[in-house]
Amino acid sequence: MMASNNSGGFCLWFTGLPCSGKTTVADMVFAELKKRKVKVEIFDGDIIRLNLSKGLTFSKEDRDTNIRRIGFVCDLLTRNGVNSISAAISPYRNIRDENRQLITTGGGKFIEIFVNAPVEICEQRDVKGMYKKARAGLMKGFTGVDDPYEPPIKPELELRTDVETVQDSFNKIMRYLEDRRLL
Amino acid sequence: MMASNNSGGFCLWFTGLPCSGKTTVADMVFAELKKRKVKVEIFDGDIIRLNLSKGLTFSKEDRDTNIRRIGFVCDLLTRNGVNSISAAISPYRNIRDENRQLITTGGGKFIEIFVNAPVEICEQRDVKGMYKKARAGLMKGFTGVDDPYEPPIKPELELRTDVETVQDSFNKIMRYLEDRRLL
Repeated sequence: MMASNNSGGFCLWFTGLPCSGKTTVADMVFAELKKRKVKVEIFDGDIIRLNLSKGLTFSKEDRDTNIRRIGFVCDLLTRNGVNSISAAISPYRNIRDENRQLITTGGGKFIEIFVNAPVEICEQRDVKGMYKKARAGLMKGFTGVDDPYEPPIKPELELRTDVETVQDSFNKIMRYLEDRRLL
Repeated sequence: MMASNNSGGFCLWFTGLPCSGKTTVADMVFAELKKRKVKVEIFDGDIIRLNLSKGLTFSKEDRDTNIRRIGFVCDLLTRNGVNSISAAISPYRNIRDENRQLITTGGGKFIEIFVNAPVEICEQRDVKGMYKKARAGLMKGFTGVDDPYEPPIKPELELRTDVETVQDSFNKIMRYLEDRRLL
């Protein structure tokens, strides 16, 4: 499908371990964009699992499907000039790259944001107690515990959420968008 | 979620029996809108099953889920000013009404188009030989054969594809959109 008549939107694609801070920063950026009357939609794992992926498991194949669906929806938006934010773990590099390809081909700008914090730090936060469950063997295929997380090789942005503040991370993203006149 | 800063798009929601002519007319309208540089996306059962609903069966529950997913995606678009077209059978009235509610609340205009032809006529067309299979008991839960089709009670438009030409049907829709200054 070709790009729309006017320019495509951007897709902020957050990726990182559970509890690395993806949703916190993504929500801040989303709120700021809405305040500025920028057209934008946000998707995290929960929204997509509720609306598009109910019934999918956490197997490799189903996770791939889940992440592809987010890519499909983001592309629908960006190719029509609407910006999108994905804040799912999206642990596998090849599926992220597939989405980059899809969204770029559609005319959107794919901005991969690596939310980088060591697993020990993420595990200390453990906001929903899921690392604990995974360590206890009560959850299978948990990213960072018994399922791999493949970091991006060349992300557009890297947020070091172990050493920078949430405000720092937020500022980095806004500066990136402003520098490129995407806002 | 509130409507976007500018006005919402419209959603042309086609509904009708298999082989009633939904896709034929929807494709014509889609092509015309693209020609006019109108922002629009089209979804039929196949596109959605491939991208958003792989693994779903044709059970009542899974069909509802499938149609809800189309509604979810159409709402994402229309509330951002992008028009959408759905050309799936969408046999059940309450799920269509649910989508009407969702899309209208988001700021979109929901235009239900009843593609109306008697089942005998649709069955004569039988473009993919599916009625035949269903009659032979090789497909279960086929709309119009062993699964109900619930016609809309008050659709915005009705196309009598048994007695009018494709061009007539197309004209009706374009006139509807133009009369309401939606184009």
